[in-house]
Amino acid sequence: MTTAPSPRTQIKRIARNASYDSAMLYAIVDAAYLCHVAFADAQGSHCIPTACWRVGDYLYIHGSNGSRMLKQLAEQESCVTITHLDGLVLARAAFNHSMNYRSAMIYGRFTVVEDSGKHAALEAFMEHLAPGRQPQVRAGNEQEYGATTIMRIALSEAACKVRSGPPKDDEADMALPVWAGVLPLMQAHGTPVPDARCTAAAPAHVLAWQEQDQA
Amino acid sequence: MTTAPSPRTQIKRIARNASYDSAMLYAIVDAAYLCHVAFADAQGSHCIPTACWRVGDYLYIHGSNGSRMLKQLAEQESCVTITHLDGLVLARAAFNHSMNYRSAMIYGRFTVVEDSGKHAALEAFMEHLAPGRQPQVRAGNEQEYGATTIMRIALSEAACKVRSGPPKDDEADMALPVWAGVLPLMQAHGTPVPDARCTAAAPAHVLAWQEQDQA
Repeated sequence: MTTAPSPRTQIKRIARNASYDSAMLYAIVDAAYLCHVAFADAQGSHCIPTACWRVGDYLYIHGSNGSRMLKQLAEQESCVTITHLDGLVLARAAFNHSMNYRSAMIYGRFTVVEDSGKHAALEAFMEHLAPGRQPQVRAGNEQEYGATTIMRIALSEAACKVRSGPPKDDEADMALPVWAGVLPLMQAHGTPVPDARCTAAAPAHVLAWQEQDQA
Repeated sequence: MTTAPSPRTQIKRIARNASYDSAMLYAIVDAAYLCHVAFADAQGSHCIPTACWRVGDYLYIHGSNGSRMLKQLAEQESCVTITHLDGLVLARAAFNHSMNYRSAMIYGRFTVVEDSGKHAALEAFMEHLAPGRQPQVRAGNEQEYGATTIMRIALSEAACKVRSGPPKDDEADMALPVWAGVLPLMQAHGTPVPDARCTAAAPAHVLAWQEQDQA
């Protein structure tokens, strides 16, 4: 599926790197544990990092009922951005250095998830963080669910921008005796650190944590 | 050095994780290749990822002279946020799951770096990306410098928020037979990929790229 760009998502700067493809958008969102949310209040613009996850055509966030951000997000349009940095691009000319990345920007209005949808939303969050973990933990009680606000934003007004591959040098610079190429960056998964008072054996989602890096 | 919190940087939510220490702020900024910048225009709030680097008490960004964002940033207060995700925190109770992270939020007004400061600023950027590389590449010419706008924002109104360490479960949940602990995340450095037409030997900053992960 492809969505047409809106006035807010029409990418003008290096437009060849733009995409409005839903599959790419979902892949960028699903690879993220957190996003940055821009909104404004009487003090000006704010840019807040927060955990996120996707269910269907929506991106979800959550927080305490008292959160300033969540209150503001119900009352205004905001912009959610996810960025994965994939490498430094070293060119022969200083000016042509760049970065490889995958980014997604989502515009719209967050709405509060009603009580009836809270359980499913938070279970999806747990499944995103640690697949299969939900039945193993002490589930949320009424007080905990009551203290938590969940909000979601439609993924319908969004744009991706992706750069990959080698540097793009001017032809006149190609013969210069300069190393050129890409220095890759990726997220790595370290050895799980059990809590000092944990006596339980590591479950599958913990044992599999570092295997992602060998894939 | 410690800066007193302003109304914009006073952290209210889980305030025990807040810091106004410059050394911590600089460390978080220096560990980043990119930041997210929040600003607003007639279309509402925007959250844009962009490359960043630090010189002294300022954070720098750059772009094309035609950049919508750079034009807006000269005319309004904005918020710059850097976030490093260090791990997923798995607790015994669903509600106590968390993330370990280091984040910095900087508020203020960007100003344009005058022509006389452009060379030093961009050389500092190169040094941040690839230490020692600047003298090896084809330096920027007048046209390239002329097409580039550099802006900086003071690091004086900023706040850091950091979470580290194990999950914090309720005492009543401690005896549950649930694995609890931290799944660490870090940035890893992949094998450098030379450009297809590159015949130059890899310089020190390329050879050292992956050594950072053994440190």
